[in-house]
Amino acid sequence: MFDTQLGFAIRRHCAPLLDAEPFCSPDEYIEARSALSADEVGRRLLRPSGFETLLIETGHRGDEILGPAHMGATANAGYAEVVRLEVLAEELVEAGVHPSGFVDEYARVLDERLRTAVGAKTIAAYRTGLDFDPSRPTHADVARAVGAWIDRISNYPGSIRLEDPVIIRHLIWSAIDRAVPIQFHVGYGDPDVDLHRCNPLLLTDLLRATRGSGSDILLLHCYPFHREAGYLAHCFEHVYCDVGLAINYTGSQSAQIIAESLELTPFHKALFSSDAWGAAELYHLGALLFRRGLAEALDDWARRDQWPIAEQQRVAQMISRDNARRVYRLDQLPSATLPSSTAHPSTPSTHGASD
Amino acid sequence: MFDTQLGFAIRRHCAPLLDAEPFCSPDEYIEARSALSADEVGRRLLRPSGFETLLIETGHRGDEILGPAHMGATANAGYAEVVRLEVLAEELVEAGVHPSGFVDEYARVLDERLRTAVGAKTIAAYRTGLDFDPSRPTHADVARAVGAWIDRISNYPGSIRLEDPVIIRHLIWSAIDRAVPIQFHVGYGDPDVDLHRCNPLLLTDLLRATRGSGSDILLLHCYPFHREAGYLAHCFEHVYCDVGLAINYTGSQSAQIIAESLELTPFHKALFSSDAWGAAELYHLGALLFRRGLAEALDDWARRDQWPIAEQQRVAQMISRDNARRVYRLDQLPSATLPSSTAHPSTPSTHGASD
Amino acid sequence: MFDTQLGFAIRRHCAPLLDAEPFCSPDEYIEARSALSADEVGRRLLRPSGFETLLIETGHRGDEILGPAHMGATANAGYAEVVRLEVLAEELVEAGVHPSGFVDEYARVLDERLRTAVGAKTIAAYRTGLDFDPSRPTHADVARAVGAWIDRISNYPGSIRLEDPVIIRHLIWSAIDRAVPIQFHVGYGDPDVDLHRCNPLLLTDLLRATRGSGSDILLLHCYPFHREAGYLAHCFEHVYCDVGLAINYTGSQSAQIIAESLELTPFHKALFSSDAWGAAELYHLGALLFRRGLAEALDDWARRDQWPIAEQQRVAQMISRDNARRVYRLDQLPSATLPSSTAHPSTPSTHGASD
Repeated sequence: MFDTQLGFAIRRHCAPLLDAEPFCSPDEYIEARSALSADEVGRRLLRPSGFETLLIETGHRGDEILGPAHMGATANAGYAEVVRLEVLAEELVEAGVHPSGFVDEYARVLDERLRTAVGAKTIAAYRTGLDFDPSRPTHADVARAVGAWIDRISNYPGSIRLEDPVIIRHLIWSAIDRAVPIQFHVGYGDPDVDLHRCNPLLLTDLLRATRGSGSDILLLHCYPFHREAGYLAHCFEHVYCDVGLAINYTGSQSAQIIAESLELTPFHKALFSSDAWGAAELYHLGALLFRRGLAEALDDWARRDQWPIAEQQRVAQMISRDNARRVYRLDQLPSATLPSSTAHPSTPSTHGASD
Repeated sequence: MFDTQLGFAIRRHCAPLLDAEPFCSPDEYIEARSALSADEVGRRLLRPSGFETLLIETGHRGDEILGPAHMGATANAGYAEVVRLEVLAEELVEAGVHPSGFVDEYARVLDERLRTAVGAKTIAAYRTGLDFDPSRPTHADVARAVGAWIDRISNYPGSIRLEDPVIIRHLIWSAIDRAVPIQFHVGYGDPDVDLHRCNPLLLTDLLRATRGSGSDILLLHCYPFHREAGYLAHCFEHVYCDVGLAINYTGSQSAQIIAESLELTPFHKALFSSDAWGAAELYHLGALLFRRGLAEALDDWARRDQWPIAEQQRVAQMISRDNARRVYRLDQLPSATLPSSTAHPSTPSTHGASD
Repeated sequence: MFDTQLGFAIRRHCAPLLDAEPFCSPDEYIEARSALSADEVGRRLLRPSGFETLLIETGHRGDEILGPAHMGATANAGYAEVVRLEVLAEELVEAGVHPSGFVDEYARVLDERLRTAVGAKTIAAYRTGLDFDPSRPTHADVARAVGAWIDRISNYPGSIRLEDPVIIRHLIWSAIDRAVPIQFHVGYGDPDVDLHRCNPLLLTDLLRATRGSGSDILLLHCYPFHREAGYLAHCFEHVYCDVGLAINYTGSQSAQIIAESLELTPFHKALFSSDAWGAAELYHLGALLFRRGLAEALDDWARRDQWPIAEQQRVAQMISRDNARRVYRLDQLPSATLPSSTAHPSTPSTHGASD
């Protein structure tokens, strides 16, 4: 696990923050990390990143990781939640919803969660692939699919996992109807994923169908389809993208990916995210490597085409902060979610920080 | 629109030619451009590019843009036409062709146009995707499909757009039978395109079927499938490719794409194009960025492997000029299409300059 | 043929070893090469590469090229064989196997060959594409498919080529059952290949099904899907990859591909191969360009992130030698296959050197 770009980046950049030497051995790293409390590790790795606001999606084993408020305190940053659509449905079924009541109940809980959450997230990529029928299913279809899902659960206890494409399409359309930002996990994830069914181009018909809906669609991670994602952000006015988890996992080689992701993506459509599920290292590396790679790309373009320094800074500010603030309407966040200290205007917010 | 690689390239490289400052504001740019006549803008942007011959495909809203002769005069360059196969069919149907007469009539008008046009272009990518059955349809199939198309038009007036895959295949085979160069729009285009159905690899069976036909197949643009296109040009002796519109749209980042496109593409199979529909800026940037990116790639390879300067120049000359002259048989152009001034032997011709 | 990256690399790097000038003309190169015996050409091109052990797959027109022992002597290197699964089946059918006896006979000859061969190779990519049903076929299905194959051969004499997906799946599962390393040809090959059906992601279900089987899966070449291959090596503990023939064919531009292939591939999962069917030039260029590109990538990462020199060397040693020795269990090779001279510990073994 340490003989990877990620492992080398951890030994190089995280070790010194945890009182170990750069490029110490994996054993030394684990020892140094273990000598500190989990909170202390979190503070040491997150605070130097200068996050202004953390947008945290808590859907993946949310009970095993820190909640958004705790994460915000650890990072000394503001925070807000992104709600995972599939988890809400699984919770309803777990609580014994009747198939005929699912649509109404789902509308109710989604509305409730969106009173504070700043957006929704779907992991259709993991569950059905992105090559799904983009049309809106009827309520009758949804009720029937929920009935079949509940039957399956009662036959195979323990397997509550939502995989039905009809229901997942209903969840996505429920979010679209509410005109909130919707994150799509795209591309590179874990062995659950059939990556050849996660090409964001497979969403083209859905993107056509959601023009003018008021929902912005955010394509997360996208590697190795980040050029394809940039094309979609270029073509569709409501599509945004980032290269999220591709950055911390590709370490020393990440700068090229960042530059490629900005070939077609309009500068007001590119975002930063870290996909830092669980490990604080991923937040630290995501922010450090993204800042460095973006700076390198901007320097390269300035060298070739004399981009004025003010323009470089403006583009960096858009991508690292302002685009996320605008899309997620962060100016409307209640003040309880803001840190007590002064905000850091020049540092990136993170969106989709956990999935 | 200006916060893109293209927008930055326009402000950097086109502004000074129109009496504005580099990196002036978008408003200033538009103002400076508006202060000049359209012809003057064209001359200022096209002439410094040193085009020798413009190959212009006039199929896309041809009445809204300048004709080839006017474009040639504006650029002080030779010119020739590439004929769009789908438009010829739409014109026949608009003129009231009978389904049973379509095949003969199409043969007649295609022959007529190819007396002066130097090649054909198909936009099957926009209309059906490239994953079409590559076999030649029968005349009876074509007549039946044309009948259905005409019925559709009479039921939905205004919708003359040809989308029938049987007819489009017939058009392509009509061009193959005439052994002319055929341009395929490939990859990145506009929201009309299902990009995942535009991978040039989907043409593999057609490329096998057309070996030895005498037709050369030119894959245009190809991003983000330019490596795949290079593979096809490497494998099939009658296949050529370019990275056309990917260059002007990716601006400061375009050099990497040019280098990637020359990984497998044989140097005598790579071409230059600008896909400059309408805006003169796209011609200027296409030529400037392609020359610069190609020079950078050649310099890099010379640095690594001591390519002699004469070999660098020979490769540049092939890609920027000679390959296009050979494939499109430009030496057989009537002298009326040549500019009065001396030709510029070291500058690129453009092929597929408009689509 | 010489106006390609490969042609330029041959003129630059191979010419001086054959008494011609760097960048001599193609005619001069061919003349210089012809003035030497085939063995002498082989020795001059292979020995400077410092191969320690050549793993040679002899399945493709094996009678036209040198056998592993002769190759080893030419290169002054150890050698071992990789057996092509499809060829064994074709040989059985050629020898008149009865369909009902195929499964047993195949098991017998495969066991026999694997007493000395260090692994198996499949060219399912060429014959059926990689989008095949990954499940294990029944013996009855195999017997039926072999019967149909034999019928086809008797109807069309000369066409012994195995293309039946049921039989090919049986061969692959036969190798899996023996827990040997299995090479998959992936991606870029020749016009036989439908490249869009060679994306290694299409193997995802088979990779899931073979976890814990004891077989390691080696994805060879992979261009232009090398990032996808790296993702699979990252996700699946028994998956390895290389960029094989992409290196010598992309010449001066190859360093970028090597760096990209090491974005996600764990360093203990990346290998070197040359895919040098026949021509000794491909061995020489494969080794030279891979060493140079890997060194360049490591230097770049060290510059960005201060990788210690010892870590750079350790990664280079893993990728160029140790990973292959471990996966193919080369320490268990009989001494007859080792060269008389001292081994070169710092130089790459080659795996899959011919296909």
